[in-house]
Amino acid sequence: MTVHSLAPKPDQYSYVFGGREPLLSIRPGDLVEVSTEDCFGGRVMSPNDLPSHVVPFTELNPVSGPIEVQGAEPGDMLAVHFVSIVPARPHAISSMFPHFGALTATHETAMLHESLEERVWFYDIDLDAWTATFQAKNSDYALALPLDPMHGTVGVAPVGGEVRLVVTPSTHGGNMDTPEARAGTTLYLPINVAGAMLSLGDGHARQGEGEVCGTGLESAMNSVIAVDLIKGGATVWPRLENDEFIMSTGSIRPLEDAFRISQKDLVDWTSDLTGLDTLDAFQLVSQMGLAPAANVCDPNYTMMAKLPKWTLKEAKAYGGVHARLRGVAAEYLASH
Amino acid sequence: MTVHSLAPKPDQYSYVFGGREPLLSIRPGDLVEVSTEDCFGGRVMSPNDLPSHVVPFTELNPVSGPIEVQGAEPGDMLAVHFVSIVPARPHAISSMFPHFGALTATHETAMLHESLEERVWFYDIDLDAWTATFQAKNSDYALALPLDPMHGTVGVAPVGGEVRLVVTPSTHGGNMDTPEARAGTTLYLPINVAGAMLSLGDGHARQGEGEVCGTGLESAMNSVIAVDLIKGGATVWPRLENDEFIMSTGSIRPLEDAFRISQKDLVDWTSDLTGLDTLDAFQLVSQMGLAPAANVCDPNYTMMAKLPKWTLKEAKAYGGVHARLRGVAAEYLASH
Amino acid sequence: MTVHSLAPKPDQYSYVFGGREPLLSIRPGDLVEVSTEDCFGGRVMSPNDLPSHVVPFTELNPVSGPIEVQGAEPGDMLAVHFVSIVPARPHAISSMFPHFGALTATHETAMLHESLEERVWFYDIDLDAWTATFQAKNSDYALALPLDPMHGTVGVAPVGGEVRLVVTPSTHGGNMDTPEARAGTTLYLPINVAGAMLSLGDGHARQGEGEVCGTGLESAMNSVIAVDLIKGGATVWPRLENDEFIMSTGSIRPLEDAFRISQKDLVDWTSDLTGLDTLDAFQLVSQMGLAPAANVCDPNYTMMAKLPKWTLKEAKAYGGVHARLRGVAAEYLASH
Amino acid sequence: MTVHSLAPKPDQYSYVFGGREPLLSIRPGDLVEVSTEDCFGGRVMSPNDLPSHVVPFTELNPVSGPIEVQGAEPGDMLAVHFVSIVPARPHAISSMFPHFGALTATHETAMLHESLEERVWFYDIDLDAWTATFQAKNSDYALALPLDPMHGTVGVAPVGGEVRLVVTPSTHGGNMDTPEARAGTTLYLPINVAGAMLSLGDGHARQGEGEVCGTGLESAMNSVIAVDLIKGGATVWPRLENDEFIMSTGSIRPLEDAFRISQKDLVDWTSDLTGLDTLDAFQLVSQMGLAPAANVCDPNYTMMAKLPKWTLKEAKAYGGVHARLRGVAAEYLASH
Repeated sequence: MTVHSLAPKPDQYSYVFGGREPLLSIRPGDLVEVSTEDCFGGRVMSPNDLPSHVVPFTELNPVSGPIEVQGAEPGDMLAVHFVSIVPARPHAISSMFPHFGALTATHETAMLHESLEERVWFYDIDLDAWTATFQAKNSDYALALPLDPMHGTVGVAPVGGEVRLVVTPSTHGGNMDTPEARAGTTLYLPINVAGAMLSLGDGHARQGEGEVCGTGLESAMNSVIAVDLIKGGATVWPRLENDEFIMSTGSIRPLEDAFRISQKDLVDWTSDLTGLDTLDAFQLVSQMGLAPAANVCDPNYTMMAKLPKWTLKEAKAYGGVHARLRGVAAEYLASH
Repeated sequence: MTVHSLAPKPDQYSYVFGGREPLLSIRPGDLVEVSTEDCFGGRVMSPNDLPSHVVPFTELNPVSGPIEVQGAEPGDMLAVHFVSIVPARPHAISSMFPHFGALTATHETAMLHESLEERVWFYDIDLDAWTATFQAKNSDYALALPLDPMHGTVGVAPVGGEVRLVVTPSTHGGNMDTPEARAGTTLYLPINVAGAMLSLGDGHARQGEGEVCGTGLESAMNSVIAVDLIKGGATVWPRLENDEFIMSTGSIRPLEDAFRISQKDLVDWTSDLTGLDTLDAFQLVSQMGLAPAANVCDPNYTMMAKLPKWTLKEAKAYGGVHARLRGVAAEYLASH
Repeated sequence: MTVHSLAPKPDQYSYVFGGREPLLSIRPGDLVEVSTEDCFGGRVMSPNDLPSHVVPFTELNPVSGPIEVQGAEPGDMLAVHFVSIVPARPHAISSMFPHFGALTATHETAMLHESLEERVWFYDIDLDAWTATFQAKNSDYALALPLDPMHGTVGVAPVGGEVRLVVTPSTHGGNMDTPEARAGTTLYLPINVAGAMLSLGDGHARQGEGEVCGTGLESAMNSVIAVDLIKGGATVWPRLENDEFIMSTGSIRPLEDAFRISQKDLVDWTSDLTGLDTLDAFQLVSQMGLAPAANVCDPNYTMMAKLPKWTLKEAKAYGGVHARLRGVAAEYLASH
Repeated sequence: MTVHSLAPKPDQYSYVFGGREPLLSIRPGDLVEVSTEDCFGGRVMSPNDLPSHVVPFTELNPVSGPIEVQGAEPGDMLAVHFVSIVPARPHAISSMFPHFGALTATHETAMLHESLEERVWFYDIDLDAWTATFQAKNSDYALALPLDPMHGTVGVAPVGGEVRLVVTPSTHGGNMDTPEARAGTTLYLPINVAGAMLSLGDGHARQGEGEVCGTGLESAMNSVIAVDLIKGGATVWPRLENDEFIMSTGSIRPLEDAFRISQKDLVDWTSDLTGLDTLDAFQLVSQMGLAPAANVCDPNYTMMAKLPKWTLKEAKAYGGVHARLRGVAAEYLASH
């Protein structure tokens, strides 16, 4: 078990996917202990620091990476298993951001309204209790919420030589902002360039489905990932797997197209795994599938399509790589 | 406890919400044992009966009702608690329907494609095992799926004197096709006309989120509902409540507007129940909310927005009517 | 030439399509001189009368009708030719309406914003100069705009026994709000009930494409229509024809589906008229078609798809009914 | 008058905006005679060459450039005036492309349909008659269509260091596919990097609004552009101006957001030019604006918002640069 460490200095963070030299080079099967900044680059240090004032727009959402995976080639699939994701600071931050979020006029859904109030919430993190405490701004309502840490932004270099700002999720992954990207889950990313060039960041101590206000509990993270390579068989869109579900994603606008992409991919995946023809797989997914929103605030929206693995009988996705990585993770966690 | 019975004859089924004389008149607090036909009007009797051939388009999705609720006035809210929903036949039916469903060209998402294959699946229902068995058409793949019975279509007479075909969900409820409309759940419907004029049907032995192929496990049902009246306080959109969650709905196209409506209503509801101001409520919903699709196939799409009730502390929606109806249901079930 | 007159009294206006007894019965080929109220029911009498204060929501957009057309049957097509449309008052009115319009949060595109300012503009109408004069509210900018009168709302009773509020355009026509519905144009409406049950209203002294702020130059009108009946051959969606163009419509959300419906109908129409197969017709429409927005503010959006008639060579839509009605109109106008 | 020439060799064409070294460096005020390839890179040489077989996906839509404009800085606006656009070959080509176009399932609007037939049409170009002749594939229907040459793809390097495939229009311009980009029109592009880095290509001998089938009359072009620089005052989105109209654009999905962006920009522009406050400008645009589709097939859709310049009275956009460039163009054309 080879364990690398990646702790970028402030000037090493990246704000794009694609076109960057790697900060680290690893081999398939390796683990990486990686530290990530919060989406504000650590610049929001009190509830009085309004994000739009203290963070330049082009420096939102820094990611740690890229990490080169040796032997990765276009057409392969990268498996990124989240071994652990732990908040690195005693507080997490959520905020409204002007003209950003699902219930406000935005630069895309352009309207004549002034922006809503920019408001910042600080949540106290208690790692022992595994909670983050919500404190209302305009009343004394307080509530300890269970932590459920995840990475909002995980992706590889895009196809066709594109360089994309981190904020936009697409076929290369990126800012999908799904709560499913938690410890114990494996993310599969289609590889577009030699070395894959994996980056991640945008940790959330927790987040509701849809990321409706535009932010989760934004948190710097100390995370551990296990990375593996699946030769060939790359899909167009990222997928996820945990012990219970296989999960397809679609990241695009409008929301019904994100839904369509995720559902069609899940139908295709189910057909591949079970031997069902397309319409029989469509039927099974229609009756057993779950369809939660991931984000409805980013430049592309992300929908999830989930199917319980027991409906696949004996079939194992990608030769059982998820179970194998679960084993690697358990071994690592037992020794740390 | 007054228990009514409603078992419409074939010519008594309704295909619209609004503009119909009641089949039954009840008082708030009463229960109704109601039988409902499947969405095909019982006309699909074998896998060889193609729905588009055997069911006239205007006779899809019959509903049982309307039921007049005495004392109900515009501006009130109707509480419909699902006491039990039990499949009435030894099989349920799912099908593709030409140009209907989320992954096909439709009359709305108009394209130049021929329709996909019309295919019918019969599921054997086993009430003892509480399963419905999927049998693939083009392979021997078979799988017993857990029953999770629900009503796809439950609504009242629309606002403004409108008469709407049953297939279109909107502010009056109707064909929302959410799996959340199961036994143990209370549905709240804003009342637009004296007597409310409640109808229901379109039972599904189970259904995935999104109803992707356009149908669930379509099933005639023997159901029991408990009906109550909340004077005043009608919302614009239907809501639901079960023991764990309050739930808002939005039924419209495009899907992001259905999402927006459901989330905004949940923010408003949370604010009302907790005293949080709008943005603080928005923050709580953003971090603790769930956002599954209900249907992405009907003339209007339906999104759900769910919040765990424990985050509301001591607050009770509508004076605790859900808990009271749970008690009534328990009493009924104990004696039947 | 039989010329009828229809001047509804205040309590005779209708606010729905469908489910109403006719105010007038005519025969195919007849003309009707019809007076229509403005969309505010004449209640906005000065720029200080805010529409949301003086007009009950359910009394917006009154229509004159229904007019029964003898011999009309479901499956037939109604041809409504606009002979003349003349503003009836010396002013037209435009306004912002709270949460209505393309650049504001609405009840459908639900957001947390307060509504924009409700503002009313009065335009002086000069029938001799054929202008309406815009006068800015917050500056002395004034400008005489050319009149281009049209009816925003023209439709028949809907299919399936539905009764629809006038504000929602759909397959039955209704509130399409296209500037193309001007004098000299023929509107084709698919007939759903015996007698067709034609109603019209919502005159605009002029309107931009998209009706972006939610209203045109709202104006009571004195109009003349010539009505004819095309036996059989009803389409799903309304169509229009003027001397230069055939035009298809699609009225639905989202806007891309309104676009798709209108374009597919134009492809089908072109194929029917020219004998081109579907893909050849698609090619011709793709290169020669125009695609302006009609409205992007109503409960359903309307897109237009237009093809120059010279590209159809000798083909005449519906046996040349448009040219015939142009002749009837000329005869009427010469004698009045 | 300095006139440059840019005739890229096959290996010099670019397939992205951003991240490329300039092929040419010019000064504001200069003209460039530029040759562009068709969107197929010249590889479709007969109707039997199916684009999906003969053109690698990453080599669709080559552009000529980038052209560096000396002195251009982020925050400035580039003015690109189309002096002339003339088809370079005796034929233009249109085609269906698998899963591309407005009336087919696509990779974004994912469905279970097989792709439509891939079909190629060759149009004979007659520069003297100024026509392109449509010849149906499955009948003898033929028709000479008027030429109306335009460039579908014109843009600069994107903001934030992004590199974007040519096929996606956005704030940097790119593949907007509007028929308005014809000779006599000035395109204004916001500048994101020093030198602006202008590229253009994707000539269409003509194209309908919406580019419904996914292609226009694809044609290599010999074009002349006059380029000028407006210091400061960059907008977010590209704009256009011809002798009659100012025009705003929005390129995004869904289509209603492209509409909203274009309309809001036109309101803002009108307010700037006339001194009208935002709501008065909104009113004027609502009554006098035109709103045609540009493309409804590319990864982002493009809508246009047009306002007749006479409604602006004496106001001149950008200090009258369009009129000045019209003069330069006239001078060039008189001498060539």
